[in-house]
Amino acid sequence: MKFVIKKQHLLNNIQSVVNAISSRTVIPILTGMKIDVRNNHVILTGSNSDITIQAHIPQKIGDEEIITNMSEGTIILPVPHFPEIIKKLPEELVEITVDDELKATIRSGHAVFSLNGQSSEEYPQLPPFQSDDTFEISINNLKTLIKQTVFAVSTMETRPILTGVNVKLENKELEFTATDSHRLALSSLEIEEAEIDDMNIVIPGKSLQELSKILEDTDEKINVSLMKNQILFSTENLFFLSRLLNGNYPETSRLIPDHSETTLFVDRRELIHTIERAALLANREQNNVVRLDTKEDNIIEVSSQSPEVGYVTEELNVNSFDGDELKISFSSKYMLDTLKTIENEEVQINFTGAMRPFIIKIPNNESILQLILPVRTF
Amino acid sequence: MKFVIKKQHLLNNIQSVVNAISSRTVIPILTGMKIDVRNNHVILTGSNSDITIQAHIPQKIGDEEIITNMSEGTIILPVPHFPEIIKKLPEELVEITVDDELKATIRSGHAVFSLNGQSSEEYPQLPPFQSDDTFEISINNLKTLIKQTVFAVSTMETRPILTGVNVKLENKELEFTATDSHRLALSSLEIEEAEIDDMNIVIPGKSLQELSKILEDTDEKINVSLMKNQILFSTENLFFLSRLLNGNYPETSRLIPDHSETTLFVDRRELIHTIERAALLANREQNNVVRLDTKEDNIIEVSSQSPEVGYVTEELNVNSFDGDELKISFSSKYMLDTLKTIENEEVQINFTGAMRPFIIKIPNNESILQLILPVRTF
Repeated sequence: MKFVIKKQHLLNNIQSVVNAISSRTVIPILTGMKIDVRNNHVILTGSNSDITIQAHIPQKIGDEEIITNMSEGTIILPVPHFPEIIKKLPEELVEITVDDELKATIRSGHAVFSLNGQSSEEYPQLPPFQSDDTFEISINNLKTLIKQTVFAVSTMETRPILTGVNVKLENKELEFTATDSHRLALSSLEIEEAEIDDMNIVIPGKSLQELSKILEDTDEKINVSLMKNQILFSTENLFFLSRLLNGNYPETSRLIPDHSETTLFVDRRELIHTIERAALLANREQNNVVRLDTKEDNIIEVSSQSPEVGYVTEELNVNSFDGDELKISFSSKYMLDTLKTIENEEVQINFTGAMRPFIIKIPNNESILQLILPVRTF
Repeated sequence: MKFVIKKQHLLNNIQSVVNAISSRTVIPILTGMKIDVRNNHVILTGSNSDITIQAHIPQKIGDEEIITNMSEGTIILPVPHFPEIIKKLPEELVEITVDDELKATIRSGHAVFSLNGQSSEEYPQLPPFQSDDTFEISINNLKTLIKQTVFAVSTMETRPILTGVNVKLENKELEFTATDSHRLALSSLEIEEAEIDDMNIVIPGKSLQELSKILEDTDEKINVSLMKNQILFSTENLFFLSRLLNGNYPETSRLIPDHSETTLFVDRRELIHTIERAALLANREQNNVVRLDTKEDNIIEVSSQSPEVGYVTEELNVNSFDGDELKISFSSKYMLDTLKTIENEEVQINFTGAMRPFIIKIPNNESILQLILPVRTF
């Protein structure tokens, strides 16, 4: 096996793939990165028990020659050594050769590295990357769906299904839902074209976070394919495979109140800053609870206290206020998580009483809905 | 007690003083920040068992009014709450008032914070900030002396005196020395004016690191005063007091070889990059040792190996090479620490054999000398 490659291309693809590789895996061979040279591509693969990432580096991009002197072969190289070495190489070109004893030689400028590789034969076989159950979505839209929901997954393993995001496709509407049973985040959009009629799966939250991290911001499309127990996200040169969570995701629609007794319209940034200040004196041992009281003349008061330290109150002008007076307490962390994912100048908050879940949304927009359960403090 | 102050001035000074405050102190009152309003200044004080930092904020800077509505008083406010609150305030001005029950009210815009303070009576008394044993040095020069030596102090408490930097003043030459007994760093400069004849003290390395952190890069002067068991660094508005280490600092001059058997002149950046690459495969369990071999024609070879993983060799052209052939092994970490503090394009390395300490210096410059003990590997 041999190839000469432009360092920056190799490095960028290594950095995508290395995210799947963990030193704490139970399968020793998975601590390494797989390199294949075949079909005019250098193919990098990283994998753990949850996700597999594969990058295909083509020999040419347009007229630019990326790889030369290719001869086919396959090897596993140690991580983090292999990525660290490529990062620190002195020149723009790197030559990698592998001999019959699985010894890889990496040359760039005057630097010569020799790495002990492992045979690819022991590397787990991947399923064929193909499926008929597929749809397309723009990468930016996918990243928005992930961002607006994944923060609300449960981090507790007591109900494993809640550590995932419920992804549903029905009548070309794609809907992501996450809940840790104290809050719920829901985001949806219309898919233009789909070869799959309906879908109802649960993807581990961590997988979606990793996927979001390695995808650049772009309106280009990504292909989503449902496979047996797995889901594949693929662009021309990048393949991201995640296992699915088994089990039934709870029916969440009945948690969502269908009417509102108190409705606020408020500037999102001002509310973020006011709650951040109140959170400074919120009791850290009690979920950083802050309190919201409605006042007259479109004013709300946000307050909190920490028994030993002190208290804070701040009045905030809201854009409009309708309905019953209200005193309600909630986790400042949950509220800030939510407000930071909604990219709109104004948010609408619908309350149905001090002890009922309340909803945060964008006015006149049904595509995003965030729900938070209040906290009983009196 | 009361004052109204421009937020940014208060915040900048809080950030200097807060570095001295630790939540792990054995004296509970020291977990807070002391605020005094007196003599047309707001004075902030933070302290732990090693250092005390005090910032004096004047009522006016030039024509700019920084503080208004002052009435005298003193209080201790809780950390991190007080700094965090000031950082997040909504407006440019902040009003702080303290009532007779030590309750501090902090107002800015619509935000009102109430913090429970503590009485300053329990706060340790500071010594008067005055001494006749004093000299001046530019802040940039002081920071350079610290940077070129403090990294070499010992982190082990087995010989506490070595956790400090030996600071000597003799015939207007100021010399900083640090050693952890595996390496030694020495840096010196001429002082223009001094009211003190000679001095030989040991300042804790951590104190000097903190001092360096809060001093901005400037050629302005700082005053250094030797007090009983303590040293005071002071500018017009900032006072930094550190305890000294008790005990005799070892005599280090006889460790320094007085001749050279092999002398290299080499580009500092190229040597850094070559050693960084060699360090990637250096054995982490054995002090990251790399090996240097002299070759013919002004070439050196830097290499290392990690039994399971592989090995690396790299040839480097040096600017000149004189004397005996040499094979020597040393800690790549120590070498990189040293090379990164020497700000010169070229460095000179003097060896006196594979098992003797070697010296790294700037050619034709006696103000800085770094010494490293080699490692026996064969």
